[in-house]
Amino acid sequence: MTGEGLKNRGRTRADVDERRRAVEESAGVSLPNIGSLSFDPMVASKNIENMIGAVQVPLGFVGPLRVNGDHASGEFLVPMATTEGALLASVNRGCSAITASGGAASVIVRDAMTRAPVFRVRDTRHAVEVAAWAESNFERLREVAESTTSHGRLLSAQPFAVGRSFFLRLSFSTGDAMGMNMATIASEAVARLLERETGAVLISVSGNLCVDKKPAAINSILGRGKIVLADVTIPRQVLEDKMHATPEAVAETCYRKCGIGSSLAASLGSNAHAANMLAAVYIATGQDPAQVVEGSMVTTTCEVVDGDLYISVRLPCVEVGTVGGGTRLPCQAEALSMIGCLGEGKASKLAEIIGAVVLAGELSTLSAQAAGHLGSAHKALGR
Amino acid sequence: MTGEGLKNRGRTRADVDERRRAVEESAGVSLPNIGSLSFDPMVASKNIENMIGAVQVPLGFVGPLRVNGDHASGEFLVPMATTEGALLASVNRGCSAITASGGAASVIVRDAMTRAPVFRVRDTRHAVEVAAWAESNFERLREVAESTTSHGRLLSAQPFAVGRSFFLRLSFSTGDAMGMNMATIASEAVARLLERETGAVLISVSGNLCVDKKPAAINSILGRGKIVLADVTIPRQVLEDKMHATPEAVAETCYRKCGIGSSLAASLGSNAHAANMLAAVYIATGQDPAQVVEGSMVTTTCEVVDGDLYISVRLPCVEVGTVGGGTRLPCQAEALSMIGCLGEGKASKLAEIIGAVVLAGELSTLSAQAAGHLGSAHKALGR
Amino acid sequence: MTGEGLKNRGRTRADVDERRRAVEESAGVSLPNIGSLSFDPMVASKNIENMIGAVQVPLGFVGPLRVNGDHASGEFLVPMATTEGALLASVNRGCSAITASGGAASVIVRDAMTRAPVFRVRDTRHAVEVAAWAESNFERLREVAESTTSHGRLLSAQPFAVGRSFFLRLSFSTGDAMGMNMATIASEAVARLLERETGAVLISVSGNLCVDKKPAAINSILGRGKIVLADVTIPRQVLEDKMHATPEAVAETCYRKCGIGSSLAASLGSNAHAANMLAAVYIATGQDPAQVVEGSMVTTTCEVVDGDLYISVRLPCVEVGTVGGGTRLPCQAEALSMIGCLGEGKASKLAEIIGAVVLAGELSTLSAQAAGHLGSAHKALGR
Amino acid sequence: MTGEGLKNRGRTRADVDERRRAVEESAGVSLPNIGSLSFDPMVASKNIENMIGAVQVPLGFVGPLRVNGDHASGEFLVPMATTEGALLASVNRGCSAITASGGAASVIVRDAMTRAPVFRVRDTRHAVEVAAWAESNFERLREVAESTTSHGRLLSAQPFAVGRSFFLRLSFSTGDAMGMNMATIASEAVARLLERETGAVLISVSGNLCVDKKPAAINSILGRGKIVLADVTIPRQVLEDKMHATPEAVAETCYRKCGIGSSLAASLGSNAHAANMLAAVYIATGQDPAQVVEGSMVTTTCEVVDGDLYISVRLPCVEVGTVGGGTRLPCQAEALSMIGCLGEGKASKLAEIIGAVVLAGELSTLSAQAAGHLGSAHKALGR
Repeated sequence: MTGEGLKNRGRTRADVDERRRAVEESAGVSLPNIGSLSFDPMVASKNIENMIGAVQVPLGFVGPLRVNGDHASGEFLVPMATTEGALLASVNRGCSAITASGGAASVIVRDAMTRAPVFRVRDTRHAVEVAAWAESNFERLREVAESTTSHGRLLSAQPFAVGRSFFLRLSFSTGDAMGMNMATIASEAVARLLERETGAVLISVSGNLCVDKKPAAINSILGRGKIVLADVTIPRQVLEDKMHATPEAVAETCYRKCGIGSSLAASLGSNAHAANMLAAVYIATGQDPAQVVEGSMVTTTCEVVDGDLYISVRLPCVEVGTVGGGTRLPCQAEALSMIGCLGEGKASKLAEIIGAVVLAGELSTLSAQAAGHLGSAHKALGR
Repeated sequence: MTGEGLKNRGRTRADVDERRRAVEESAGVSLPNIGSLSFDPMVASKNIENMIGAVQVPLGFVGPLRVNGDHASGEFLVPMATTEGALLASVNRGCSAITASGGAASVIVRDAMTRAPVFRVRDTRHAVEVAAWAESNFERLREVAESTTSHGRLLSAQPFAVGRSFFLRLSFSTGDAMGMNMATIASEAVARLLERETGAVLISVSGNLCVDKKPAAINSILGRGKIVLADVTIPRQVLEDKMHATPEAVAETCYRKCGIGSSLAASLGSNAHAANMLAAVYIATGQDPAQVVEGSMVTTTCEVVDGDLYISVRLPCVEVGTVGGGTRLPCQAEALSMIGCLGEGKASKLAEIIGAVVLAGELSTLSAQAAGHLGSAHKALGR
Repeated sequence: MTGEGLKNRGRTRADVDERRRAVEESAGVSLPNIGSLSFDPMVASKNIENMIGAVQVPLGFVGPLRVNGDHASGEFLVPMATTEGALLASVNRGCSAITASGGAASVIVRDAMTRAPVFRVRDTRHAVEVAAWAESNFERLREVAESTTSHGRLLSAQPFAVGRSFFLRLSFSTGDAMGMNMATIASEAVARLLERETGAVLISVSGNLCVDKKPAAINSILGRGKIVLADVTIPRQVLEDKMHATPEAVAETCYRKCGIGSSLAASLGSNAHAANMLAAVYIATGQDPAQVVEGSMVTTTCEVVDGDLYISVRLPCVEVGTVGGGTRLPCQAEALSMIGCLGEGKASKLAEIIGAVVLAGELSTLSAQAAGHLGSAHKALGR
Repeated sequence: MTGEGLKNRGRTRADVDERRRAVEESAGVSLPNIGSLSFDPMVASKNIENMIGAVQVPLGFVGPLRVNGDHASGEFLVPMATTEGALLASVNRGCSAITASGGAASVIVRDAMTRAPVFRVRDTRHAVEVAAWAESNFERLREVAESTTSHGRLLSAQPFAVGRSFFLRLSFSTGDAMGMNMATIASEAVARLLERETGAVLISVSGNLCVDKKPAAINSILGRGKIVLADVTIPRQVLEDKMHATPEAVAETCYRKCGIGSSLAASLGSNAHAANMLAAVYIATGQDPAQVVEGSMVTTTCEVVDGDLYISVRLPCVEVGTVGGGTRLPCQAEALSMIGCLGEGKASKLAEIIGAVVLAGELSTLSAQAAGHLGSAHKALGR
């Protein structure tokens, strides 16, 4: 019976319950909290297989955070899910300082999801021919790509060749979806056309020049998803009152840590802890948490300008959606609704808010380290 | 009143409920699912601030997965939390093939958590003096570090100097805790001693040579947390039956995608999608999901050996604990209990299981891409 | 008098001799060989200051090497200057195998020299404005750039922004000159225009996003100078006869060394010793040897195809000229003449030959290592 | 007859002359300057094969440069060979400013040459066994390594494992030789012992974790050859008088260019043009110019301290010798004698001088760019 329960592939609540009981029996454990689902598992039928319940990740908020974006404008209470004590308190201090300083600018300077199929070609000459064919037939590639999707648009196709491996890095506009699946399906169609017309043999629809969920310089340089820039100038008095640090000390911390330290470590990006904010907002709002990997390659800069603290972040890979994927789930949809980012037309707004939240977190941590009490903050609030 | 609710800093259920109502009112939304907490929020009082409830992330399992490790030995049903359709089905296929092949070897070859404070020194000569002092007084550094912790042990202190910035990369054994906070507190004690004795000025207890939650070569080369190696040989027949691919095709996919593609992309690590497995297990079991960033720098290799498929993964940064942090939370503790990894003496076992799960996911995705149907798998199961 | 000799800034032979005598006197040494110049120092007046003579670097040749390029077609005796024993003998074996196999294909797939001035801007919003201005005024940028040069053409201007730093990566076609100085002068003109029109303040005409003489992923990915691809298939019999290695052994060596080893080392590029060939040809032909740095990021691949050895190289940064710079000097001009690459219309030919020479060197070293006698080769021929 | 001349493998002047004539005839060119050798070719018999003459690279000097090192102390006239106009004039300005400021500190903080053979092992378990054997038999490894060399000492052996590839990174002290060949020969002996004792199969004595002549983070982090740190504080007045720039402008240039620019470019190291100085000194003094590749990963920092300019360089890979290799050649030996660096006991002195020369070049270029006239300097002096 256990075996049957474990092998059950159904998606109803009864199926989920049966599977969980089979796991409980098989592992000799009890999983009451995992089973305490507040929603019908059928809602998650496209989000997971072998479901036995849910994990409840504590959710809080930071803010009000004033954002002066092109899409996000106003004050926001931003949902964040985490198990790391002190994180929200820290980000919240940053939000407070930003809002007291008039808010954070946050803008999107590029928006494209990428997929790069890899092909086997005969040799270098063949690779050159395939590249030439792709270039002169871009319209055909575009048509076949867009025939697979209602929202996606093929923006460009960039060839890379090395020996018998040929890559075509395809960039897509994907509307309000994060767009990976859309891009994958469209890329496969493009790849099949290329195969037929050129004799190149598709090896993988993802050739790791995309690059999804791996840290890679091609993404930190050229971006993937949305490139977001956010910044704010914190007046000296606000910084001293709220963060107990001076502009000079924060700038020096950023310089020695993010500048020199990250360079010596051979890091991609240079920041204090951008991944923390990304992970917490991504989990709260139903984004793909594994895309925090490329998201983490943020560059944070601090400068003393006219006696105040200027701080900025460049997020090269904000890969988020407000439709599809995890955003369909009840808690995640509610979290998106907290910042008015649920559904069509909201992905850019979400990305700008994320830029501002990362800025707040960077400001707070750099200030705390500058003030010399990172360790003690964790001692008081943390595990 | 809204303002009061938002500013409430309490940690009881009543406090959480009041805050959530204040958010609902302020944002004009309703958050019933976020409020459907199955546990007393006081349990999470060290995991989050400004709590308003929880986000429920769908949780399933993969397995049975046979692991032949030094600490993990047997068949496991491994919990994974995700919102990405097709992920668990895919990893599960990999588990099935591995188990049918006798299981995955999984071993830990290094285990140390690192923190690298950065100091301002006067110049290069001063840096050399400070490094020399640290080297000849390692025992004092060790004593002061270990006076702050019951489980942590200082293993080494490696100096790096550039201009007026001096870094001391401290490596700790941290028992069954992931160990970041332990390392941070101990590092601050070391740093204060160094300040007093050498005149170096502590700028930040984390100087980004640690490196936490940023992708950096120093971690992919030297490791952080546990370095885990896992591998398995899949007999040709098993691979063809279960994955519908040949060893040659999988090896070629791995070579062109993870080998050539990752190199051209200037990636750290080279793998198919290790971050997916790490994120799903980390969220399920209460680990820090932002540490998927360094975790993602996995190297996956495939070779055809005597007609069968040999596949391996090297995980340079498995930073996990089975005590403290998110492991205290009810769902997360239940998930850990599914694999017998809750509490003292279990961190190495957990790391070995994670190595095997990543191996399963890599095997499955590379096989699927080799079989040419990644796009169609997502079309059927995904969003 | 010594002081006077040292301070002499003249460029005639008498000046050079006087300076050298002053150095001899000041350092208490004798420099007869350095003084044995076969040409009038005035010829080098644009190549060096404070000249006291020349260093004679041993020069040899490899070949005949058959190249089947778009610009280079035929068999060549290629000049190489080195002091590293065994290098030319090794490359020569590679040439012999390539020529016996019908020659190497060698093609140029991109050709552009880059310069990226960096500006200070007020903030992120200002950066966005400056980028927009540059995009909509590309024609003006082009005109002002091309007004400074007879051969250079501005191809594109790609903006990068982070905080108060704004970069414009300018790509130029530079004819048969290597083109750095041309690009620098044109970029300064562009930068001055941008300053006047946007209020951005030029900080440096080179902002290290160019990137000249530093190893950087932006160059290995996007290329700088000429991207050259070269390859050849060596029949099994030829490989065994000439290199005493099998295709399988060479492919495995390339895989474990260039594939896995370079990835673990977090290398940019993955090859055996491309820099050796580049340095030797660059010094022989008057190229800038410091540009071997970016040139070294070569990707070498080996595959067993139908029982034979396929080997390829991708050179992302071949920055060479056949006019100007060191090509004006007598020995260097003679070396260029050996391969018919002196003067106008020859830079592409030179780049293709270089691609083939690097291929020969990679083939030979990988074969020697596969055959297990690298150490013994150096023992016999080397220092 | 031509064929015979080309195939001549002799090393006497007559052989060299016959080969050159054969090349002249075969290529239809005249090579009088290449043939104008001032020394007996037999002297170069261990430095090159297929010799036909020499290329004369213009050689000048910079200085006097005051160096306050542990091994180099005093004022030096440093030889540099280049064909890049404006380089020596620029470095010379930097030397002048440094000397006027009391000289540059320059120290060596690590000294080890590395080689990392790669082996094929059966699987991960086997790799762990091999690593354990190497660790517990280090003395045997040391003995067999040191039996091959009179000066080399094996310092450490660091294992790296991934799948069926196993690397052992061996670090050697190599006295006054650069040490690559010594390390290669000793590593092969170590590798053969490991093969016999563990069943690992040597694939290549160099597994690209060494890493020689490829840019790789493992070298920039851990160093190869000598890690040299050099710095100086230039008083404001000296900077303004000699470089026409302010400390603030130079520090800002370094920050935006080397800090932000290099980070965005995903560079290894962050400097202005360290490779130029390395290449020019290496060619002048008979070092291996291809090792400029790893040498180029220099970190340059500038700070305004008490109103003056503090500037530093960290050179992670200064791989130089004062015996063997190219140092035996007449011109190169003369160049070494200019700075008292010829022969035994001088390698550390040479490395410190090189650190100071790189510092001078960085100071000058950053100052020139800060002063806004890089383009115009090249226009006046350059090609």
